[in-house]
Amino acid sequence: MTWETYLVEHQSQYQDELLQFLSIPSISSLPAHAVDVQRAAQWVADRLTTAGLEHVQILATGGHPVVYGEWLHAPEKPTVLIYGHFDTQPVDPLALWTHPPFEPTIIEDRVYARGASDDKGNMLTPILGVEALLKTEGALPINVKFFLEGQEEIGSPQLSSFITKHRDLLACDLVLSSDGGQYSEDQPSLMLSAKGLAGMQIDVRGANGDLHSGMYGGAVPNPIHALTAILASLRSPEGKILVEGFYESVLPLSNADRAAIAALPFDVQAYQEKIGVTTLLAEPGYTSQEHLAARPTLEINGIWGGFQGEGVKTVLPAEAHAKITCRLVADQDPVAIIDQIAKHVEKHTPPGVQVVVRALPGAAQPYLIPAEHWGNQAAAAVLEELYGKAPYHRRVGGSIPVCELFLTHLGAYTVGFAFGLEDEQIHAPNEFFRLASFRRGPVAYGKILHRLAHK
Amino acid sequence: MTWETYLVEHQSQYQDELLQFLSIPSISSLPAHAVDVQRAAQWVADRLTTAGLEHVQILATGGHPVVYGEWLHAPEKPTVLIYGHFDTQPVDPLALWTHPPFEPTIIEDRVYARGASDDKGNMLTPILGVEALLKTEGALPINVKFFLEGQEEIGSPQLSSFITKHRDLLACDLVLSSDGGQYSEDQPSLMLSAKGLAGMQIDVRGANGDLHSGMYGGAVPNPIHALTAILASLRSPEGKILVEGFYESVLPLSNADRAAIAALPFDVQAYQEKIGVTTLLAEPGYTSQEHLAARPTLEINGIWGGFQGEGVKTVLPAEAHAKITCRLVADQDPVAIIDQIAKHVEKHTPPGVQVVVRALPGAAQPYLIPAEHWGNQAAAAVLEELYGKAPYHRRVGGSIPVCELFLTHLGAYTVGFAFGLEDEQIHAPNEFFRLASFRRGPVAYGKILHRLAHK
Repeated sequence: MTWETYLVEHQSQYQDELLQFLSIPSISSLPAHAVDVQRAAQWVADRLTTAGLEHVQILATGGHPVVYGEWLHAPEKPTVLIYGHFDTQPVDPLALWTHPPFEPTIIEDRVYARGASDDKGNMLTPILGVEALLKTEGALPINVKFFLEGQEEIGSPQLSSFITKHRDLLACDLVLSSDGGQYSEDQPSLMLSAKGLAGMQIDVRGANGDLHSGMYGGAVPNPIHALTAILASLRSPEGKILVEGFYESVLPLSNADRAAIAALPFDVQAYQEKIGVTTLLAEPGYTSQEHLAARPTLEINGIWGGFQGEGVKTVLPAEAHAKITCRLVADQDPVAIIDQIAKHVEKHTPPGVQVVVRALPGAAQPYLIPAEHWGNQAAAAVLEELYGKAPYHRRVGGSIPVCELFLTHLGAYTVGFAFGLEDEQIHAPNEFFRLASFRRGPVAYGKILHRLAHK
Repeated sequence: MTWETYLVEHQSQYQDELLQFLSIPSISSLPAHAVDVQRAAQWVADRLTTAGLEHVQILATGGHPVVYGEWLHAPEKPTVLIYGHFDTQPVDPLALWTHPPFEPTIIEDRVYARGASDDKGNMLTPILGVEALLKTEGALPINVKFFLEGQEEIGSPQLSSFITKHRDLLACDLVLSSDGGQYSEDQPSLMLSAKGLAGMQIDVRGANGDLHSGMYGGAVPNPIHALTAILASLRSPEGKILVEGFYESVLPLSNADRAAIAALPFDVQAYQEKIGVTTLLAEPGYTSQEHLAARPTLEINGIWGGFQGEGVKTVLPAEAHAKITCRLVADQDPVAIIDQIAKHVEKHTPPGVQVVVRALPGAAQPYLIPAEHWGNQAAAAVLEELYGKAPYHRRVGGSIPVCELFLTHLGAYTVGFAFGLEDEQIHAPNEFFRLASFRRGPVAYGKILHRLAHK
């Protein structure tokens, strides 16, 4: 029996197992569900063992656990670390769910449950692919390690120190991530980059208390005026960031990169209508798509100071504040960026006010995998075989810190290899996963492990 | 008996009457005290009658009443309208009062009570001065009308329409206001000007809802950025307002005006230390004192938009808002100013956002009386006689709408002629009035009425 036939024959069993897995309410953000996260870890460990993985272990992290399993009998072949997570988002607002979130329900070849797409349904597919290979071929074409975590939905607080401590256990040549998705049902995609993040707060102080604007206005520096002058100096109206050195370490876009970005469908009209704006910005020299995908940004996320109520209050306020986040691209560094902005702010602070710029938590390095990396080549070949089309190259505006963690601590790039789709309501009520994707995933994993053997 | 001797002989009676008047809790802002405002009106009307005024009436306004009384038997002589108010501020926080606010208490020649200085103590003094003249000389040197109101502390909402409707009744050559004060116990002052007010709100809208700054940042216009660019364009760092036409109708300061402003004591070091700033601003070409006293200002009173909580929220907000007030000087007009600012904002709005500028309530015209006006000359002569010093010329940063009302509707300037002092806790707990001022006021009024006869 081929491994592919094995997958077909066990489809109904796998579907039952998926429902079982989805019925564990492993919400990592709620302390009351910590025991369910632990149960999900146990379920995953058992499933790895059944699949034929070795040295399967639930490992403590100081927070929610991780599950590890390996098959390392392919000397001379590369080692792949397969990543995914078995924790889920919370379910509120519960009233908006058509079916209880932890009573998985199948309707028209879709399974509805919290975690169905993000990430339990996706996470199971490489385990099933590996099982099919082991049960039919008795071996895997390459070395495989599973590294599945239970704290992704709360920002993986213990993951960085865990990976640092277990560098040898997790050592690998490539990471395949089962957390993510494709462009559409019939269009595959490869994720090339995710942006980094640098967050900061600017606090401006003037007088030692709020003053009467009639009695003091004109002579006493107003921190809101100072703040608006500072903020207005940071960015041009088109969105070019005017901070000295800000673009210094940004890797240039090649013509191929720009062509790949232009190849993604982007209906400006529809995009503008959906969000309700009449024009899009773009840094001079770049399209809006390029700016969204591959250029760094600076956005004021919030601003406040003085009187916010109804009517008039003639106050000259004592303080004003703003929050800013920058999305960074390779090879920008959040610490250096915050330092550059702090210097800029100092230089642009008008007389008479005190200004402090402080870094906020949540900094993330940008991530970029070369388009022609051998991992991407293997993934592209499998996706083209399955979809009949070459994958789009996607660049993500958000941050995916785990990719950067693997690159920094293990020296290994991450290839996103998962089958969720954008409409599957992840983090929202009525999350679902297409069972077609659940059947396709194990096949895709079987194929890519074979491809990677010929690196 | 001279009128001055009459005043001395009746001092103890007048003090008793003041205590009686101060015990009426005529708080105009609290509906439960409307009946007390009415009682105070009746008390004032009775007192005017006793003093010898004629045609004394309590007149309805649609809100709290006004009291009118007249003595008009000096043909060929000018007519003076004497203004004041018999309503008071509320008393909270009550716990901070050493004595109950409506149980007037005399300690060391000061009377402690709500309304003692603002304005009941002051308001009584012209009535007593007029009484002394009438009782001893049988006539007044000029024609006098009393116009005393009961809604000053709530912004005199019905006063404008009342004055418009009763132009003939109130017709006069000059207004003397018993609401206000002097520079210090031994230094008199004349108020030359008060600033007008134009308040507005700027609302900026971008997308139809808050967006993820990672997914949309760089392409979607951010209303906070737009707002900061707009606001930063309004004013130079020194405080010069950059709105086209803003200074067009500002009357220039003469050398004498500037000398009078410079003559007022202004300890920059002490001023800065008190409010906790290290520098003062000043429009180029003007001193900080000139800017405070006699130049228009534009202050952002409040700003808000997006995320104001702890930590980071990567939001690209849908809207941002700011509140602005301008303090205006003669001959600026609040409606024209708001229009100019709206045009400026429109011109400086970056692409991709919608901006609305709307006027807020509370607009006020600026007020300016010529320094050498005959009313000022008479007041200055009396003050110099009483204090042994020429009065300072003061210009007030706040607004005194009633002066502008009299000027617009009656064509008469207002001379502030009152004896409160800045430390008398008006609008605050433990308000008091110096009995020395209560004795000086009637004398001053007797003298000024005589002076004005020789206009």
